[in-house]
Amino acid sequence: MHVVVPYEAGSPKTRLEPLLDAGERSRLARAMLDDVLSAVEAADGSPHVLATAPLELECPVTVDDSPLSKAVNTVLAERSGEPTAIVMADLALATAPALERLFRTAGPVVLAPGRGGGTNAMVVREPTFRVDFHGCSYRDHLQGLSTGEPTTLDSYRLGTDIDEPADLPEVFIHSDGATRETLESIGFSLAVGEGRVTLERGDSQVIP
Amino acid sequence: MHVVVPYEAGSPKTRLEPLLDAGERSRLARAMLDDVLSAVEAADGSPHVLATAPLELECPVTVDDSPLSKAVNTVLAERSGEPTAIVMADLALATAPALERLFRTAGPVVLAPGRGGGTNAMVVREPTFRVDFHGCSYRDHLQGLSTGEPTTLDSYRLGTDIDEPADLPEVFIHSDGATRETLESIGFSLAVGEGRVTLERGDSQVIP
Repeated sequence: MHVVVPYEAGSPKTRLEPLLDAGERSRLARAMLDDVLSAVEAADGSPHVLATAPLELECPVTVDDSPLSKAVNTVLAERSGEPTAIVMADLALATAPALERLFRTAGPVVLAPGRGGGTNAMVVREPTFRVDFHGCSYRDHLQGLSTGEPTTLDSYRLGTDIDEPADLPEVFIHSDGATRETLESIGFSLAVGEGRVTLERGDSQVIP
Repeated sequence: MHVVVPYEAGSPKTRLEPLLDAGERSRLARAMLDDVLSAVEAADGSPHVLATAPLELECPVTVDDSPLSKAVNTVLAERSGEPTAIVMADLALATAPALERLFRTAGPVVLAPGRGGGTNAMVVREPTFRVDFHGCSYRDHLQGLSTGEPTTLDSYRLGTDIDEPADLPEVFIHSDGATRETLESIGFSLAVGEGRVTLERGDSQVIP
């Protein structure tokens, strides 16, 4: 499977500003990208990073600083119906089995929804289908096929994008990759307070 | 599959206090229970509600006002290794296919983790296994088998429990059951603001 991984190389993950400075957010974004690319390769996918700025990677990189949906739709138009997966670069919980399940699910369009109505990962086999990641993109994509219905993939791992502070504990609970190592090296750790999971930085509780 | 559904009948869903008064929280909890029971039955499961207080339902109800883990472990001890599923009553996004996938996944213990390290649904076939829902229960349950390893089920629908305000939009995006009807009748609706999903009550934005 050809797998497009869009990557914001400039100032990624601004919703994590309450907890991380710009340099830390960049490190975290890059670690998440590395984890996603490893999982894609382990799932026998061929990753192709679609970055907003040049980036050194072992896999092919296309630079396109257009808005996300436009950049992805340019790729889809070029591929004219050749099966293409789109996997977001912040799916730090992605694993080979989760992605294999996505790749092998049949249908003209297969959607893995994310929290808050986003579309975290998808496979497009329908030549005329175009993406729109703005707003409640999962619902929009559900209605975006001219004939037939998109298929939804029910995956917690692909449904969990790391976007805001409350998402960070998920990395500690479900992953042991580069993302978790990066968070640990920044000083974060998981704790269980009053029966609920919390996140600490050094000795201070930062979540919730 | 015999399916235990624990239900807090007293003052449920206290973490929704910022948005809902006690009566509304009770209505919502009951609607979620109804949706879960419907999904269990559609998945060919036999639901058995384990409630903290008497409750009128068409399926069998056992009243036990012990803490959650103790009440569930009493049931597990009684069933002495007969396959038993435990499905939380606030999984408003549960569907028959998601539950069928849970029920047919092989293994002595099968866990569907929830956001924040909870265990939202599980199947227990190992006679000596006992639950502990306090803290990061998913990690504790992963380590709770004397031999072998529990299996994890990767499901967004079972991973999404409706616990706090930020969870409510998920009901509108992924469900059309009694829970959504109840939220609509209370006055909630979904909106898309600045490219992100928000929740409104009447004309006021309440999330985020």
